[in-house]
Amino acid sequence: MAVLGAPAVLRSATERGKMSYAEIEKILARGDVKGKLFKEDLPTPALLVDLDAFEGNVSKMVRHAKEKGRSLRPHGKTHKCPEIAKHIIKTGAAGSCTAKISEAEVFAAHGVGGLLVTTAVVGRHKIERAVRLARKSPDIMFCVDNIKNAQDLNDAAKSAGTRLNLAVDLFVGMRTGITPGEPAVRLVEAMQPLSSVRFAGLQAYAGQASHVVGFEERRKRSRDIMAQAVETRRLLEQKGIECKLLTGGSTGTYNIDCDVDGITELQPGSFMFMDVDYNRIGGQDGAVYQDFRNALTVYTTVVSKPDDRTAIVDGGLKAFSTDKPFPPVSKDKPELKYAFGGDEHGKLTAEGSALALNVGDRLEFIIPHCDPTVNLYDRIYGLRGDAVETIWLIAARGMSQ
Amino acid sequence: MAVLGAPAVLRSATERGKMSYAEIEKILARGDVKGKLFKEDLPTPALLVDLDAFEGNVSKMVRHAKEKGRSLRPHGKTHKCPEIAKHIIKTGAAGSCTAKISEAEVFAAHGVGGLLVTTAVVGRHKIERAVRLARKSPDIMFCVDNIKNAQDLNDAAKSAGTRLNLAVDLFVGMRTGITPGEPAVRLVEAMQPLSSVRFAGLQAYAGQASHVVGFEERRKRSRDIMAQAVETRRLLEQKGIECKLLTGGSTGTYNIDCDVDGITELQPGSFMFMDVDYNRIGGQDGAVYQDFRNALTVYTTVVSKPDDRTAIVDGGLKAFSTDKPFPPVSKDKPELKYAFGGDEHGKLTAEGSALALNVGDRLEFIIPHCDPTVNLYDRIYGLRGDAVETIWLIAARGMSQ
Repeated sequence: MAVLGAPAVLRSATERGKMSYAEIEKILARGDVKGKLFKEDLPTPALLVDLDAFEGNVSKMVRHAKEKGRSLRPHGKTHKCPEIAKHIIKTGAAGSCTAKISEAEVFAAHGVGGLLVTTAVVGRHKIERAVRLARKSPDIMFCVDNIKNAQDLNDAAKSAGTRLNLAVDLFVGMRTGITPGEPAVRLVEAMQPLSSVRFAGLQAYAGQASHVVGFEERRKRSRDIMAQAVETRRLLEQKGIECKLLTGGSTGTYNIDCDVDGITELQPGSFMFMDVDYNRIGGQDGAVYQDFRNALTVYTTVVSKPDDRTAIVDGGLKAFSTDKPFPPVSKDKPELKYAFGGDEHGKLTAEGSALALNVGDRLEFIIPHCDPTVNLYDRIYGLRGDAVETIWLIAARGMSQ
Repeated sequence: MAVLGAPAVLRSATERGKMSYAEIEKILARGDVKGKLFKEDLPTPALLVDLDAFEGNVSKMVRHAKEKGRSLRPHGKTHKCPEIAKHIIKTGAAGSCTAKISEAEVFAAHGVGGLLVTTAVVGRHKIERAVRLARKSPDIMFCVDNIKNAQDLNDAAKSAGTRLNLAVDLFVGMRTGITPGEPAVRLVEAMQPLSSVRFAGLQAYAGQASHVVGFEERRKRSRDIMAQAVETRRLLEQKGIECKLLTGGSTGTYNIDCDVDGITELQPGSFMFMDVDYNRIGGQDGAVYQDFRNALTVYTTVVSKPDDRTAIVDGGLKAFSTDKPFPPVSKDKPELKYAFGGDEHGKLTAEGSALALNVGDRLEFIIPHCDPTVNLYDRIYGLRGDAVETIWLIAARGMSQ
């Protein structure tokens, strides 16, 4: 049995499943789980990552970017977890994107460098936070899409005696930004006299291309969209304005955008975990996109069996994201049909047969969409096989500000 | 300006909007917000509750239950907030439901009594937690829907020298439970010899009736469904088994179930906050259900304006629940159309006209569905007018275990 301060010892098969919850709770509180906890010890619903699959996904993307000569700055809004950002940087990435300033504050406080905040920092208070963060993390980049905001950032940086690195965000159909081409060029030119901001480059995120079903169709869509961003960069350089960075790309277009001259950096997120959404868009080689492995699952328990053909698991609207029109998929028994059964429950049925499930059985589900699912949990349990090897705190969960 | 340890002083109009974020951060950390903070000081996206509307909703439901001679145990899965549970109990409720054991642990630790855990407690570890909790909170009730689980609970309670109060959960089409009528009666009979559990009554939650559009159709549906639960109670009492409790009902059926003889307790949740989902089901008096006021909103900021007809706010999939097929509704400008624009953004358009919005403008949105939206936030800001009067920690956020 686990004792406070005792060294980690691999539990033998006979010991497994014998611990009390009070003992498990102590191990969870200390976090020294390796060799002590197994999957079956975890309270459900729980968010699990298959470490072999996750590490393989990260290595593959890092190798890909290196081979194509692009920088890689995966998006931290996917995992919201400083430990994961640090793992990816150690494997070879240039840094981490974050969606918002509050996410960046958490990442920086945990020692993550190379940050790019992909949403504009708007309002006096958030600008104050950006300046404070830049003093601690001088390489951080922020996005801007209008001159008023750039002037506000400049004024605040000047008062604080610092400089801010600003990327101009291009609106290419999704999220935020300024119209590419002449409007964007005029903004960059208007920023030139501002002495306390430094023009870092361009950002163009085309989320609508990432999810186009069918590789060829997706390639065409992404190239059409990203051409506007590449052209903006060309116009700038024509005017003698150096533009070292053009960051964009996603898990859906990582092997498309890397072949577009002028895109210097990829900022994909979902590849590290993969989800049902990305599986269905189709890959370069077939109808199912499987360049990366499904590494993230939600682990549930059957808590009720109202009849022979229905089982209720303890994961519902609060355990899975619901923004996509398809349900979680059982990893263990893909023939099962999952339907949301309210905030706290999922309803499992199997076509035409009695359900070979009992109250107390446990099932893992591949998630519909990774980013909003991760944002529901406080920790990710990292598993090697069925041994819990690590717990990663989702320290920036809820940091949408 | 706020100083550590300084008394709360109502800020004058001239002082408003002058604080630095560093000062606001200190006030937020201490929590002594009253008289110091206003809506415009809050970082967005933020979850706001209009205290006048909220308190009015709670008082109305308490009066209703009292007039109808029913017990009231509102569902804590809606708010996940011990301070709210205590406010409701102080106003006149019998206690609080919780969906899961982990939610009940948090509520109990904050001094909330009269708990009913509405999902069965399955597995050795969760049963250990139930017994531990019952020793601290002897009036807590758990739900059960099969004899094996009842025996396991009994054995654990016996070993610990305590007794557990068990309600039998009936499956009336939603969530969990055993078939009403004879199967349920046989379960209650089989529980009689178990010396360390006490039969507390019946639970029947008919969520599928709650959301039926149209009051008359909803009344018919709920009465048909709840008749099975009432009949089960009658069968038990016919056999001489006392059944003091039949708990069920929802915000959609609070004024229907209270007129059904045999239903002793209501466990609605959404009434305290209200959401777009419940507005649309229609009330007793009209096409819009407005027995309770919309008290809960998400406060956002316009962070980008890609063109004259499009504004992007900083609240997206991670700021609002997405399980319902309708978007958030602007409280200030209901003519605006909100469309989800990814994890972090919402896209606002107005039919046929330029959008009278600028970057930096702030807008409140009525939420599509309250429970899963609350579960995205760590705190609710309680507003009296536009003054922040209190901050309630959503201490059981993420407690889906």
